[in-house]
Amino acid sequence: MAVNPLRPTDDAARALAREVMQGARFAALATLTEAGHPMQSRVAFALDATGAPISLVSTLAPHTQALQHRPQVSLLVGEPGEKGDPLTHPRLSLNGVAMILPNTGPAHEEMAAHYLRSHPKAKLYIGFGDFHFIRFQITQGFLNAGFGKAFQLSAADLGLAP
Amino acid sequence: MAVNPLRPTDDAARALAREVMQGARFAALATLTEAGHPMQSRVAFALDATGAPISLVSTLAPHTQALQHRPQVSLLVGEPGEKGDPLTHPRLSLNGVAMILPNTGPAHEEMAAHYLRSHPKAKLYIGFGDFHFIRFQITQGFLNAGFGKAFQLSAADLGLAP
Repeated sequence: MAVNPLRPTDDAARALAREVMQGARFAALATLTEAGHPMQSRVAFALDATGAPISLVSTLAPHTQALQHRPQVSLLVGEPGEKGDPLTHPRLSLNGVAMILPNTGPAHEEMAAHYLRSHPKAKLYIGFGDFHFIRFQITQGFLNAGFGKAFQLSAADLGLAP
Repeated sequence: MAVNPLRPTDDAARALAREVMQGARFAALATLTEAGHPMQSRVAFALDATGAPISLVSTLAPHTQALQHRPQVSLLVGEPGEKGDPLTHPRLSLNGVAMILPNTGPAHEEMAAHYLRSHPKAKLYIGFGDFHFIRFQITQGFLNAGFGKAFQLSAADLGLAP
């Protein structure tokens, strides 16, 4: 029925997708309401020491409460600059599920130390009892590098564990 | 169970939400896959001559195809600046449904002329046969103006028809 606008995924697309992911400091997070409707919010974004996408969120936030019922998420990373058509700027959608991690213990401390190097302002709230890291298990990515330049990517294409 | 982090909606919140909406030139659009999972993309964003949120999309794009099956959407508008913690920058989520509009006829021509005043670079593709305006019918908004400054808004709070 519909024309498939995807191009074959090549090394240039893989490299650009990884670059967009590595450069992102925040993301648009889409979660699901209890009725199954999409719900947007902005969240912090980082890669942990293994390269997996993570965020730091409050359990008081509606998106974190939504994740506890329905873990399916989509993230959008890659911010347009100030100039030009924002739709020509590369952006990456990451689809998968989110897991809320415990906020005590050595693994948390290690993740916090790593995270604060890229997000130093988070030291103001990282110790609050309601703040937890979430880790994203990504199953599929879509890179849009401008009109007619869309690519589908696997976890392996993104350098992520499947 | 969970603490409700929302503040009572006041005129300052309504004014800020409208300002964020009026200033946005693009948005993160969350749609639903056929399996009901959230799916992110970046789309153009504008207000039509009546003040209703619209976008200009290609029917070849996965998000437009998704909308034809499931019209529920959430938009995120309000871009952080270059400096400071991006999570202190005001952003607005808009939840509702999207309607794909016909791309011929006087109503389309009028909308196109209005749209090109805020999005002049769209003249490169606005005439393509696969490009259509979509209009968003917003039922609920969430304004996040920084930590602890979250507000829920109705269509009326946003100055939109319910």
